[in-house]
Amino acid sequence: MTNILKGRLKKTATKALDYIESIEVDKVLAPYDIQGSIAHLLMLSKCKIIKPAEKRKILKALKEIEIEIKQGRFKFKKELEDVHLNIEARLIEKAGEVGKKLHTARSRNDQIALDLRLYLREEIKEILFLLKNLEKVLVKKAEQNFNVIMPGFTHLQPAQPILYSHYLMAHFHAFQRDYERLVKASQGINELPLGACALAGTSFPIDRKFVAKLLGFKKVIPNSMDAVSNRDFAIDFIYAASMVMLHLSRLMNEIIIWSTPFFGFIEISDEFCATSSIMPQKKNPDVAELVRAKTSRAYGNLLSFLSLMKGLPLTYNRDLQEGNPLIIDTVSILKKSLDVAGELIKDIKVNKGNMEDALKKGFLEATEVADYLTRKGVAFRNAHQIVACIVRDLEKREKGISQLSLAELKRYSPYFSSDVKKVLNPQAIVKKKKSEGGTSQIEVRKDIKKAKGLL
Amino acid sequence: MTNILKGRLKKTATKALDYIESIEVDKVLAPYDIQGSIAHLLMLSKCKIIKPAEKRKILKALKEIEIEIKQGRFKFKKELEDVHLNIEARLIEKAGEVGKKLHTARSRNDQIALDLRLYLREEIKEILFLLKNLEKVLVKKAEQNFNVIMPGFTHLQPAQPILYSHYLMAHFHAFQRDYERLVKASQGINELPLGACALAGTSFPIDRKFVAKLLGFKKVIPNSMDAVSNRDFAIDFIYAASMVMLHLSRLMNEIIIWSTPFFGFIEISDEFCATSSIMPQKKNPDVAELVRAKTSRAYGNLLSFLSLMKGLPLTYNRDLQEGNPLIIDTVSILKKSLDVAGELIKDIKVNKGNMEDALKKGFLEATEVADYLTRKGVAFRNAHQIVACIVRDLEKREKGISQLSLAELKRYSPYFSSDVKKVLNPQAIVKKKKSEGGTSQIEVRKDIKKAKGLL
Amino acid sequence: MTNILKGRLKKTATKALDYIESIEVDKVLAPYDIQGSIAHLLMLSKCKIIKPAEKRKILKALKEIEIEIKQGRFKFKKELEDVHLNIEARLIEKAGEVGKKLHTARSRNDQIALDLRLYLREEIKEILFLLKNLEKVLVKKAEQNFNVIMPGFTHLQPAQPILYSHYLMAHFHAFQRDYERLVKASQGINELPLGACALAGTSFPIDRKFVAKLLGFKKVIPNSMDAVSNRDFAIDFIYAASMVMLHLSRLMNEIIIWSTPFFGFIEISDEFCATSSIMPQKKNPDVAELVRAKTSRAYGNLLSFLSLMKGLPLTYNRDLQEGNPLIIDTVSILKKSLDVAGELIKDIKVNKGNMEDALKKGFLEATEVADYLTRKGVAFRNAHQIVACIVRDLEKREKGISQLSLAELKRYSPYFSSDVKKVLNPQAIVKKKKSEGGTSQIEVRKDIKKAKGLL
Amino acid sequence: MTNILKGRLKKTATKALDYIESIEVDKVLAPYDIQGSIAHLLMLSKCKIIKPAEKRKILKALKEIEIEIKQGRFKFKKELEDVHLNIEARLIEKAGEVGKKLHTARSRNDQIALDLRLYLREEIKEILFLLKNLEKVLVKKAEQNFNVIMPGFTHLQPAQPILYSHYLMAHFHAFQRDYERLVKASQGINELPLGACALAGTSFPIDRKFVAKLLGFKKVIPNSMDAVSNRDFAIDFIYAASMVMLHLSRLMNEIIIWSTPFFGFIEISDEFCATSSIMPQKKNPDVAELVRAKTSRAYGNLLSFLSLMKGLPLTYNRDLQEGNPLIIDTVSILKKSLDVAGELIKDIKVNKGNMEDALKKGFLEATEVADYLTRKGVAFRNAHQIVACIVRDLEKREKGISQLSLAELKRYSPYFSSDVKKVLNPQAIVKKKKSEGGTSQIEVRKDIKKAKGLL
Repeated sequence: MTNILKGRLKKTATKALDYIESIEVDKVLAPYDIQGSIAHLLMLSKCKIIKPAEKRKILKALKEIEIEIKQGRFKFKKELEDVHLNIEARLIEKAGEVGKKLHTARSRNDQIALDLRLYLREEIKEILFLLKNLEKVLVKKAEQNFNVIMPGFTHLQPAQPILYSHYLMAHFHAFQRDYERLVKASQGINELPLGACALAGTSFPIDRKFVAKLLGFKKVIPNSMDAVSNRDFAIDFIYAASMVMLHLSRLMNEIIIWSTPFFGFIEISDEFCATSSIMPQKKNPDVAELVRAKTSRAYGNLLSFLSLMKGLPLTYNRDLQEGNPLIIDTVSILKKSLDVAGELIKDIKVNKGNMEDALKKGFLEATEVADYLTRKGVAFRNAHQIVACIVRDLEKREKGISQLSLAELKRYSPYFSSDVKKVLNPQAIVKKKKSEGGTSQIEVRKDIKKAKGLL
Repeated sequence: MTNILKGRLKKTATKALDYIESIEVDKVLAPYDIQGSIAHLLMLSKCKIIKPAEKRKILKALKEIEIEIKQGRFKFKKELEDVHLNIEARLIEKAGEVGKKLHTARSRNDQIALDLRLYLREEIKEILFLLKNLEKVLVKKAEQNFNVIMPGFTHLQPAQPILYSHYLMAHFHAFQRDYERLVKASQGINELPLGACALAGTSFPIDRKFVAKLLGFKKVIPNSMDAVSNRDFAIDFIYAASMVMLHLSRLMNEIIIWSTPFFGFIEISDEFCATSSIMPQKKNPDVAELVRAKTSRAYGNLLSFLSLMKGLPLTYNRDLQEGNPLIIDTVSILKKSLDVAGELIKDIKVNKGNMEDALKKGFLEATEVADYLTRKGVAFRNAHQIVACIVRDLEKREKGISQLSLAELKRYSPYFSSDVKKVLNPQAIVKKKKSEGGTSQIEVRKDIKKAKGLL
Repeated sequence: MTNILKGRLKKTATKALDYIESIEVDKVLAPYDIQGSIAHLLMLSKCKIIKPAEKRKILKALKEIEIEIKQGRFKFKKELEDVHLNIEARLIEKAGEVGKKLHTARSRNDQIALDLRLYLREEIKEILFLLKNLEKVLVKKAEQNFNVIMPGFTHLQPAQPILYSHYLMAHFHAFQRDYERLVKASQGINELPLGACALAGTSFPIDRKFVAKLLGFKKVIPNSMDAVSNRDFAIDFIYAASMVMLHLSRLMNEIIIWSTPFFGFIEISDEFCATSSIMPQKKNPDVAELVRAKTSRAYGNLLSFLSLMKGLPLTYNRDLQEGNPLIIDTVSILKKSLDVAGELIKDIKVNKGNMEDALKKGFLEATEVADYLTRKGVAFRNAHQIVACIVRDLEKREKGISQLSLAELKRYSPYFSSDVKKVLNPQAIVKKKKSEGGTSQIEVRKDIKKAKGLL
Repeated sequence: MTNILKGRLKKTATKALDYIESIEVDKVLAPYDIQGSIAHLLMLSKCKIIKPAEKRKILKALKEIEIEIKQGRFKFKKELEDVHLNIEARLIEKAGEVGKKLHTARSRNDQIALDLRLYLREEIKEILFLLKNLEKVLVKKAEQNFNVIMPGFTHLQPAQPILYSHYLMAHFHAFQRDYERLVKASQGINELPLGACALAGTSFPIDRKFVAKLLGFKKVIPNSMDAVSNRDFAIDFIYAASMVMLHLSRLMNEIIIWSTPFFGFIEISDEFCATSSIMPQKKNPDVAELVRAKTSRAYGNLLSFLSLMKGLPLTYNRDLQEGNPLIIDTVSILKKSLDVAGELIKDIKVNKGNMEDALKKGFLEATEVADYLTRKGVAFRNAHQIVACIVRDLEKREKGISQLSLAELKRYSPYFSSDVKKVLNPQAIVKKKKSEGGTSQIEVRKDIKKAKGLL
């Protein structure tokens, strides 16, 4: 504990100080602490709680400190415990006694809540930019590879032929939901806690609306106890971030599987791979693996925060401090992961030939054949059964359905006639899936067009 | 696996069937499965994929099955694996061959996604009702106990005097955020997956917009692969539920602490307590403890779902089935917890006398005295230090600040004068905290009024 | 609350009772509750706290209840809240007033701790049996397919040729660690909590050692407060179970990937697959997927329990009740997963041909060539670089290293001579990996032999 | 990627390198990397894979690097990606070409597994020391305050009088289990992965037993694929650490509650408290709160690791790298928390007077009175009911049982006689709880004695 504060208590034990100080983590909040202090200062002056001359002196010192921070010259001291006291101490050093007036009608409790909100608001802007960028990459890839047909999967087993673009757009939609979730999450951030002071407000005639306006907040938090107890905005962010990571992990895991030589659907650029220290031939998808792994870290941060908050009595408890590194770590994971994933995907090479070869495996036409029979009048459940029998028999013979003659097919069902051939190739099947949202070119093109409208 | 489906494969091993069947869990989805099937049926008929007579037959059978389910007469069979096949088998039993046509242009993949959405939509309605009810209870309690003053806490140590109503309203705000979060989460639910079929859409001329309209969905999911891969809507719900539980756990933990005889601030009604099997005097806050505990279970469900989804390739994987019990369990926890918490809080007795006695401990007037000095011209940081010294000295003497004479106070600072007495009692202090959102009656009354407008 | 207990308090509200009752969950503990009650009874009698005739009457009734439970005839009543009070009420019904003496020197606090320990001890026995069985299956498969060579993977990219048996034995070792972990975890279970009563012990002259002996516990818990507060033994179990599931999930995910037609290394038996409701050709690895998914559920249970316990004051709190379903659910998941996984693996068909074909991809001989150069005197880091260049060039030409002539090789390094051919085929490479624990037949055979010694 | 390795691939993109490098985290492993390299070197020399002169040169350089690291002079470079390549590059710089030979028969895959094991082995030693120290503090406190009686709690409600020492020893036992859990967890660490190379072992004639002996490992991991895939030892540690934190959180939460003025049982030393930036009177239990909070962080690390590993195919995947910061962070949390908690508890002041006053609340004698009646011949369940009625009536009258006359008591039950007075004071009750492990002085003294034997 610092000489600024500890009037009543004996000096903090070194081990205790080491344990409670948070400066290594919360120094990233310094610019926001200054920003909040300036708004607070202007309000104190406007409300005549401090005098104009005092305001000028403090403002000058704060601006100088702001520059020190920007230029990396500010010396953060562990013994000053946290970012707020570091800056306040420096202010007093620079501005003299008048600096001791800035903390009037303010507590670290509302101050940290403000700093976190200012910080997150700014970071989410950048995150939204990176997320949109990733979405653009996906849409662009979908356009560039528009006519590429590949096997679509359920249970990682070949299911039906699809457009590769259709697949890419499925991921686009997940990220678009993430975008909206983040936008919604960030709405809760724009509310001003400052002025709540320790927990109960203050008897100074402050003007919270003025501060809100200066800082661009859309409202003042209307209950001071809630203002300092609440970390929902931060947990909402970490949750939204976990969802982005979840969606990234699904995409990355497919990239990992698809770039094995046995699938060979895609190739990651060398620049996003790593080799082995012992196996000279290796080209490993390390970046994709790490995105997948860091997903778990975001999950861990979310869980830590939830567990941390469970059962905490109102209002501020020091436990809340332990939430700060979780927020900051998640911001970092998310920004880096979005950025690197966007680049990685942009550079992916699609092996169209391998995808087409792959269409020959797994009887991808089976559903269409069952639908064919259904259109001819067979009840779907029976048609399903008939095709199942065909597949069972063919599997032993290592043949595809298209290799059967009409006569052979008729042995399974009299409803087969020569037009069945039209549903036996992937191109035809894809084209026929014209239901809304289906994999036909016409539908996927619509989807892409709409997406471009959003971006 | 069932005789309905398993044409191609050998019979499922008993242990495998035991492992994959989900009927005990997903039978709660049965009414929604019927609802979805009827909409699907009407669409098939409208699109002339089945004939009017077929439609009538199937519809009749489905309605009868619906009644069987409602009346608890429907026999769910484990060997029929899941809710969909149970109902389809019963349909075929009742309607005969024509029943085998219903699954045309549909897959269990889009069907389960639909059922879950219909189920959650309905349950969230009830949850919102219960949540609003809890909020009403809090506001009512805040009105009923409007002038009760108690110690406000930070770090569970007495901080400043506050209105008990102010405290209750702080919890109100947390639940109001939960309300909005749930409303937002439920927006994602109202989108139609049906028609995505297995993953790629269908070549039947279906009309998804028609189905969406019948079911009251606001849009059709525009990418069939996304439609069957996506469980965001469910995870969003579980997250929102976890946040409600988090806020309940904070309130319940305070109730537990405050109803110990040493705090004695409140008394829980007998009806929400339990006694001991060995200690006859015991009146334990079991309900409050269980709400606190079930919070952890909601967290576990959230984490399980996130971990489950990590890295899953598109589109449907059987892993998704394991998400269903997590959803259903969370719905149950949340509904029961909100309901019982509302009742418990409604019946809580406030021990005004104990709260007032408690105001004497912990030097709750200290901040106001420092503010007093600040108004007299002392820099806040210095005023803080002066009061810290007073407290340090008084603590040894086991006295309160109000017990000091003016002369004694002046020994600490010449700025003290006789008007200091006005800031030395809790009533006066509360009244003075008139900053926006502060604990003064005027501000808390505003807060309550606004809240009532929302409810 | 029940008429047995609630002398002091008003009747529990219906909603409160619904919330706190646990009978649906804890009725699986009924046989253990009886077992513990009998031991307690015998001790009360031995210590002359009850009379011989009383003992006989109670014993007779307990034995009858035991049979009712076994035969499923026991009627568990929700309004009797939990398993203990259900059985006590039935006892009083059967034995009359004397039944009211059984709870002398006992509390539900020590009783539930005992029940859980007896239950887990029994279940872990069965789990160890199933786990050992799975290990046996792996070892047997390793023996049966002893000379099958396949690509070993790092980063899911082909790395070096290995014996399939070597791979299977790697999984064996993970499960063997699990076995030991479970054995260790179960050691903590064999300690007697009974006699701790509510928290402080009792003034009755009980004999806890006698009870411990009757129940086969190795020691008496030496601190009564710890005895009723502690759930370490249960969390240890859930952790150990999570680790088993983790290892199963790794194996199952490989099974899923390897049984795609593009890898085609193995084929799961029809009996452990499922088909699609719409795609007739489908054979999906549903069982393997569900094992993978249920891993997340075990994780969720672990996390719930940890979060539940965090910060709980001593001694018993009702929160602990919420741990019980976590234990029971985890037991069920683990038993079923081990059982079905063992069966699934037993029936897996190895596609030796596909594995051998796969050896041609990915330059699996590269490390061996680098080692060859190193043996010839090139520093390893340089040798690594030389081979990297060879691979880079060959990749463009779509050739393998063995297709290069000696002359061509010499262009990369003069250290190549004709004996290089000996390190260019997978069989030779595998054979040469004779370092302890390496993939050579000689080492893998040793590993298998030792494993069989353990089983 | 570095110039040491990237022969085959194009240069790593800057963003990719930023994403995959881990040097800020894994530089704490540097001393262990050196230690492992020296052992590997000596083995290579012993096995004549390198020459004596080469060995000497490399050894000299490694020792110099070791000193550079110790003295903080070593320049870790991000572009060299990780700790292994940083040290290898520096080695080559210092020793020249011969340095390129050290990586013979080694891969980063087995190297990192070794480094982590060496690191954890060392850290666990220190952790065990700190844990034992904490246990000693508890035992010492238990001795120092031996005759202090306080209310024991269940459900945070007063239950029965207990010795404060009994309570302290309950926590001791939890930590003693932690000690044993950590010892067990560390057993799995002492197994040598080195020599597994990438995954398959090597064709060089290495001697793994020799390396194991040099490094003090008790065995060589007998399956090379398992050796590089396995992180059980690390997860076991994080789990064990989570359990320690769980137990610390329970203790700390009690300290927080008990040091409120309303309980007032204990007082934390100023040196482990902090004050408020706005409320001058405040003395907050910040250290205790942070220990409680950091528990959640340990949980998050555990969960992240479990989620990370789920479904990972054998053998090494880059995901594993993301486990390293989880290990290192958990080590740091645990060490600091144990250390500071030990100091905090050592300095706690027990307010004996407040504890004794507290004995008057909550009818702590009720169980003993019921037991009294039971000894007189009343069936326990009836005795329980009788005392429940007494308490119900007294509560209204705000009296304790000891304030009732014998006549009054007899109105509840004729079994009361004058000797009842002997069970109506806390001292007598504590003394009577002589069952094994009970709260009587005789039993607690035994417990303390045994504990001292263990320490």
